[in-house]
Amino acid sequence: MMGDVRALPARRKVGYTLEAPFYTDPEILKLDLDLIFGRHWIFVGVEPEIAEPGDCLTVDIGPHAIVVTRDDDMALNAFHNVCRHRGARLIEERHSNVGRVVCPYHQWTYGLDGALLFAGHMPKGFDKSCHGLKTVHVRSLAGLIFVCLADEPPADFAAMEQAMTPYLAPHDIAHCKVAHSEDIIEPGNWKLTMENNRECYHCSGAHPELTKSIFAEGFGFKPVGAAAEASAARFHALVDTLHGEWENIGVASREIDHLADCVTGYRTERLPLEDAGESETLDTRVACRKLLGGLTQKRLGALSFWTQPNSWHHFMSDHIVTFAVFPITAETALLRTTWLVHQDAVEGIDYEKDNLIAVWHATNAQDSSLVGKASDGVRTSGYQPGPYSPDTEGLVEKFCVWYVDRLKAGLAA
Amino acid sequence: MMGDVRALPARRKVGYTLEAPFYTDPEILKLDLDLIFGRHWIFVGVEPEIAEPGDCLTVDIGPHAIVVTRDDDMALNAFHNVCRHRGARLIEERHSNVGRVVCPYHQWTYGLDGALLFAGHMPKGFDKSCHGLKTVHVRSLAGLIFVCLADEPPADFAAMEQAMTPYLAPHDIAHCKVAHSEDIIEPGNWKLTMENNRECYHCSGAHPELTKSIFAEGFGFKPVGAAAEASAARFHALVDTLHGEWENIGVASREIDHLADCVTGYRTERLPLEDAGESETLDTRVACRKLLGGLTQKRLGALSFWTQPNSWHHFMSDHIVTFAVFPITAETALLRTTWLVHQDAVEGIDYEKDNLIAVWHATNAQDSSLVGKASDGVRTSGYQPGPYSPDTEGLVEKFCVWYVDRLKAGLAA
Amino acid sequence: MMGDVRALPARRKVGYTLEAPFYTDPEILKLDLDLIFGRHWIFVGVEPEIAEPGDCLTVDIGPHAIVVTRDDDMALNAFHNVCRHRGARLIEERHSNVGRVVCPYHQWTYGLDGALLFAGHMPKGFDKSCHGLKTVHVRSLAGLIFVCLADEPPADFAAMEQAMTPYLAPHDIAHCKVAHSEDIIEPGNWKLTMENNRECYHCSGAHPELTKSIFAEGFGFKPVGAAAEASAARFHALVDTLHGEWENIGVASREIDHLADCVTGYRTERLPLEDAGESETLDTRVACRKLLGGLTQKRLGALSFWTQPNSWHHFMSDHIVTFAVFPITAETALLRTTWLVHQDAVEGIDYEKDNLIAVWHATNAQDSSLVGKASDGVRTSGYQPGPYSPDTEGLVEKFCVWYVDRLKAGLAA
Repeated sequence: MMGDVRALPARRKVGYTLEAPFYTDPEILKLDLDLIFGRHWIFVGVEPEIAEPGDCLTVDIGPHAIVVTRDDDMALNAFHNVCRHRGARLIEERHSNVGRVVCPYHQWTYGLDGALLFAGHMPKGFDKSCHGLKTVHVRSLAGLIFVCLADEPPADFAAMEQAMTPYLAPHDIAHCKVAHSEDIIEPGNWKLTMENNRECYHCSGAHPELTKSIFAEGFGFKPVGAAAEASAARFHALVDTLHGEWENIGVASREIDHLADCVTGYRTERLPLEDAGESETLDTRVACRKLLGGLTQKRLGALSFWTQPNSWHHFMSDHIVTFAVFPITAETALLRTTWLVHQDAVEGIDYEKDNLIAVWHATNAQDSSLVGKASDGVRTSGYQPGPYSPDTEGLVEKFCVWYVDRLKAGLAA
Repeated sequence: MMGDVRALPARRKVGYTLEAPFYTDPEILKLDLDLIFGRHWIFVGVEPEIAEPGDCLTVDIGPHAIVVTRDDDMALNAFHNVCRHRGARLIEERHSNVGRVVCPYHQWTYGLDGALLFAGHMPKGFDKSCHGLKTVHVRSLAGLIFVCLADEPPADFAAMEQAMTPYLAPHDIAHCKVAHSEDIIEPGNWKLTMENNRECYHCSGAHPELTKSIFAEGFGFKPVGAAAEASAARFHALVDTLHGEWENIGVASREIDHLADCVTGYRTERLPLEDAGESETLDTRVACRKLLGGLTQKRLGALSFWTQPNSWHHFMSDHIVTFAVFPITAETALLRTTWLVHQDAVEGIDYEKDNLIAVWHATNAQDSSLVGKASDGVRTSGYQPGPYSPDTEGLVEKFCVWYVDRLKAGLAA
Repeated sequence: MMGDVRALPARRKVGYTLEAPFYTDPEILKLDLDLIFGRHWIFVGVEPEIAEPGDCLTVDIGPHAIVVTRDDDMALNAFHNVCRHRGARLIEERHSNVGRVVCPYHQWTYGLDGALLFAGHMPKGFDKSCHGLKTVHVRSLAGLIFVCLADEPPADFAAMEQAMTPYLAPHDIAHCKVAHSEDIIEPGNWKLTMENNRECYHCSGAHPELTKSIFAEGFGFKPVGAAAEASAARFHALVDTLHGEWENIGVASREIDHLADCVTGYRTERLPLEDAGESETLDTRVACRKLLGGLTQKRLGALSFWTQPNSWHHFMSDHIVTFAVFPITAETALLRTTWLVHQDAVEGIDYEKDNLIAVWHATNAQDSSLVGKASDGVRTSGYQPGPYSPDTEGLVEKFCVWYVDRLKAGLAA
């Protein structure tokens, strides 16, 4: 299309949207799947999805078919979801529970740790130990499951884990249950979905439900002009006050931003909600009467936790919403949203599902439409990279910086 | 598939259909969109579609997304339909009316002349004048709207305009209205649709409705054999007589053919209709009682106006039918047909829509089926270019000559 | 994807499944269609499909569109199904009967022998004899129709014909009729469908209906271990006894295996059926009271006849099932199954169609699902070629050897 796509990362113009092939070219998608999704820690789900021994969670990321299992010792393992005999896919369903993993084609049989236990009709001398399932690295960060397909995964996951645990631990993901899950096929490249998430510039025009609780001044907003500065000053005073109160009761809250300066890039901050709000709901009150973990205070704002390249999460006192993005084609992506509540909460008594999911169900649909409009435009001959607003799109720029840096590092290796 | 597709134009065999990749190869389609549709005057619609200030007409041609607007001074403007900020598509609908063009993503706002009027959150020093919509050349030829995406459009549009105005002006397109519009996805490359249009060899076998009014002897027909020569002689005598009569009343009629010898290739001729017919209808009588412009005579034959690369038009005393072809994929194309009548004609009183569209609605469907059969064949391994009939397919040959010449010129540039 | 796909055949590892691109890469599919399907004898149908003069059978194999006709002298002819004028597809339907072949576009007209009989509007000097339909080689092997697109088809078809005629002749295909035909789009590369057919390792786990009649010990099975050896010994003793009995009554039965050592590779063997069975039916009894040809004995086992690259056939005393595989895309294939009974058998009296097709209708669906699982796995990044069982997958290995050898020969030519 325009020569060697491998030359594109080097010429990326700082502060501007990416060139069109990054959003449209199947060759770039292959690079993304290989160098980004194949070599970094990718968020794939939450521990409550595989709570019991034998539970399996499959996830497909382009050519990567992965199964995460919980074994009888409650440890997590992850494997390529493909038989070592004739290459058949082993586990079809997203969620299942098995004693052993039996291939549906010729019944080769593996343990939950991936070891080949049985293979019929093989000759003497066949070494089962050389034909176990190929492993994938897996880590749980306070209940959020990440996998890495690289031989040697980025080592700085440990630093993120250490820093983030005080933020996430109070929400006690391990004792949550999945209240609802929703998959959307977004009509654009996965990076358009991520970039859309990394700014709230569009919120006031697009998200009437979300802006009932979310302050537009969060998420890296920097004011321009006297009125905006005064409004932002009031917001930041509120943030400072609440950060102090929350940290006093053991709920870590202050901003950490390693979006662009770590291989395992991430950012977090706990932000107050509008109208002295408790949760990201239509009436800004908690959606679930039973609070998470040992929490007793409803008004804990919303903790944002973002990871590069593919996830974001909102943690409130009463529920959690996690988002994972997976490329499908160069111009489509899967957005998987999961709502979590306390495992003892009872639907219809402690929470109503419609109320729980109302804000983000609506917001996802609005964002998907915007991603589609962006995708429709960036594929046209009239598109050229445009300027980000330093005031409100600085974190989008950090996503692009991280992405291009990681692509360059991968290409250089 | 067969080496460098860029070598194909040079080896085109005169008088024969094109080699298969011209009809099937996505690389050739890219060349077509770049060198043919990106550098020539392309017919996109008619002025009655954007009659009022603020009216917008969008058209998508492969990667080219264009919006034509009428501004408050009634001037036509055309732009790339993509925001200069994050690249979102600006206007979704084919037809709309707006005061200003507001991007749905972050509300960047443009005037109907394309100037950037508002962009929120941008820093001091941001120059709005550098971020207006990118312009596209636009011209109206007596109410037929043409756009050109090239920086410097072919200059010979002016010559076509001067030559054609006496032919088109009597039909007064500006005071017409759209009575009906129909889009067909044709199952073949856009050139198969054009080639099918450029001969009436297939008419007798394929178009029972159309041949009620159209003489097969028109459209470049040259007779072979005594019987055909006698029939053609009678036809041409009739043509000569009527051309004289029509030109006497100020209705230009004689053949002009610059299909293959101009960058802005075109051809025109006003032809009599069978059975002393008035219009291209099932009974060959006018479909609309209210004649176009100031016309008073029903029997004015049918004026054919063809433009390279993508349009043809039939002008009768009572109505106009225009056809535009746009590539979709290498093996599909959009055929857009628009029927126009006098703006004061009232449906149900002056004309019945079913009667108005009957001939070309049926003919389009028949042609689409033939295009599909050609497409099904040319993609097979048994296909090889076959000979055109010099007698009845000479204008198809001219289409191919123009196309290959323009491709060669573009590749050489 | 992984450099030059043309390097892949040379590095194929003996005894292992093929590398992923053989099952997924459109470039390999092109090689397959050119070098395998374009240069070998391909099974396309049976003579009862074109029993009468003027009968036509079309078959589409990737870019190859072929029509087989029976002419007035009852001879078979085959042609590229594309007009020599503008390249239109000539015959649309799979089965039709025509006096002459008339192009639907401009009515060029051909005889059943492919000669151009009529072309309108062509100038003096136009040589019809240079514009006949392009021929395709066609042969009938005892009623099974094979075509070859190569200029010089493999000469060893004659050897196969000589060897196989005694096996097939007793079933008298020419006097059969088609009782049912079924097309399945298999969700995998055509080679996955073939490989699945070339072993019965998966039968016990996948095919409850088929294993009522078929012995798993057939089809190249070699036992491992004392129990399997004893069971296999009993089976082979039965085979030897029955081969003797059948050959005594003129029904050739003994194994011939040229799967991997002939350009026109094939294999045959007549095998007994379980439970002293007569036919591949749910109750192992004949499905049709009227036996084939002059056969009088119901219990003739099932004759397997396999051809490289794309067919297999089961011949019983009462009916025949033939299978043809055609690539569609790199990851889909058409499986065409045809059930034949004696031409005088009457549905509802001599046979019930549901009973006739029950076993293979179910087995096809099961195999299609397995092909899908294999296809889902081999396209993943975790797939690597796995080891065939020498005991039960030796004939799959022979398919791979034949395929890779023929690809190498084609690439070298």
